[in-house]
Amino acid sequence: YVTGGSQGLGRALAKWLVQNGASDVVIVARSVDGLKKVLEELEVRVLHHDPIRRYVSADLITSKGASEALEEAQKRHGRYPDHYFLCAGYSRPRYFIDHTPEELQGGLDATYWTTAWTAHTACKAMVANRIKGRIVMVGSFLSYTAFVGYTSYSPGKYAVRGLADALRSEMLLHDITVNLFLPGGIDTPGYEVENSSKPAPTKKLEEGDTLITAEECVNHMVRGLQRGYYQSTTMFVSELMRMGSRGGVPGNNPIKDFFMWLLAGIGMPIWVFFMDYTVKGFRKNVQRELEQKGYYKRAT
Amino acid sequence: YVTGGSQGLGRALAKWLVQNGASDVVIVARSVDGLKKVLEELEVRVLHHDPIRRYVSADLITSKGASEALEEAQKRHGRYPDHYFLCAGYSRPRYFIDHTPEELQGGLDATYWTTAWTAHTACKAMVANRIKGRIVMVGSFLSYTAFVGYTSYSPGKYAVRGLADALRSEMLLHDITVNLFLPGGIDTPGYEVENSSKPAPTKKLEEGDTLITAEECVNHMVRGLQRGYYQSTTMFVSELMRMGSRGGVPGNNPIKDFFMWLLAGIGMPIWVFFMDYTVKGFRKNVQRELEQKGYYKRAT
Repeated sequence: YVTGGSQGLGRALAKWLVQNGASDVVIVARSVDGLKKVLEELEVRVLHHDPIRRYVSADLITSKGASEALEEAQKRHGRYPDHYFLCAGYSRPRYFIDHTPEELQGGLDATYWTTAWTAHTACKAMVANRIKGRIVMVGSFLSYTAFVGYTSYSPGKYAVRGLADALRSEMLLHDITVNLFLPGGIDTPGYEVENSSKPAPTKKLEEGDTLITAEECVNHMVRGLQRGYYQSTTMFVSELMRMGSRGGVPGNNPIKDFFMWLLAGIGMPIWVFFMDYTVKGFRKNVQRELEQKGYYKRAT
Repeated sequence: YVTGGSQGLGRALAKWLVQNGASDVVIVARSVDGLKKVLEELEVRVLHHDPIRRYVSADLITSKGASEALEEAQKRHGRYPDHYFLCAGYSRPRYFIDHTPEELQGGLDATYWTTAWTAHTACKAMVANRIKGRIVMVGSFLSYTAFVGYTSYSPGKYAVRGLADALRSEMLLHDITVNLFLPGGIDTPGYEVENSSKPAPTKKLEEGDTLITAEECVNHMVRGLQRGYYQSTTMFVSELMRMGSRGGVPGNNPIKDFFMWLLAGIGMPIWVFFMDYTVKGFRKNVQRELEQKGYYKRAT
């Protein structure tokens, strides 16, 4: 059961699952056209597996939409899924004071509620039917730390981490496994849209970042799951951030974790200093722009 | 400008502010009766200060409610506040599968949106009027880590931390200071309500916790602010959690932080082991209860 299955990470994951022999894959997203296109691609490439592949079109930002989508999948397959990959979501970076309330609400819906409602309906279905399954949530590097531009994104991605952390503990009661995958920037259509609204200081801070393809990203996710890691990431700097920010959750490889923890402890204050220094460098420009836009009501 | 000012931490903070000479204090909450009562208490105790004290009754879980409350305060005082203390919020611990969608939504509204909407309207007002003020958000120990029972609370409190982290960076552009205060359990009417719905494993995990009074809590907050700490807490264990979970944000006292970081690195895996061990100990009981309630649809 893959949400956000019409593009980006969700689509690449659905392909990986089919190509690696998964027999019942359901992809869920809003866009029927997008879902059909993915289904065609899967058809062509892996016809010899003959898996039962379906799609469900649904708006997952409501509790009703999320549970109807799951009921639909159950009806078509005759059973509830046992693996849930919650990949739906998007990011629209912008200055906080420029965000409309609708954008802030939409940002939280797209990051948090798309994940939480499906997790809720999935947990209830798995517990009631005694399915010892797995839920994989998708966080972000920006679930660990946040900076200028991400006030409509980081809160939701932090919230996903909060839900995963609480649920990992709680689902020990029902033998259901919860994992959290936290990728960095992925080269997807979503990333291009994201960049079009990105404030100047945010772009500057991300200058050196390298994007990975959705397929590489899936490989990172799968490797983390195969190794039994609760949280896994895609980049060196995310591993540092994991060791500086994960709090009370299980670690991964103890030896690697130890060195990353040391490095994170030394590197974090330096990182914060340079991030803040860069942001402050934009202060004059940003204030001049606001002045020119007539944003200020009172002269200084 | 103190939200959640009718009880608990917000009420205690409003009192502290008036008693320490703040001349214009506005308290905001839903309950008019509660607000009036606080105002009477303040009247009696500190009449000699003669501060202009007002209350605004508002529902802060909507953007409209939050900005109307601020406009009301502006109208009465003739200016926008320069210090915002966002204390509104509550917690209703329960098992995830027992939560109704309304409870999950309400939990996020009460923790995240009460804070985010006021922060949004406050930032816009401060930037537009060139007020070099301060926003203090209230997170929780459960902004750093989460466990069984807190799926309607921790996501919102993690989200508050995400917002504070992003906003601390962004508001460097406008000389506005953002702080995050993360208390442990406080002995308030809210805590009693919280305990009435708390699942058995959650109670067990919190068995050794000591509550502090709202007044002690305010002292911790004030001390952190006076020392210029971005994040401050109320307990030793929260300090450990801060060093294991804060990610890319400024630290406090470098020497204390260093020792706390060492301790957190050693202690965290042990803490996780015992937390998980305790939760697993409830597995049989919880499953038997669900069996008796007829929750299971399929026999094992």
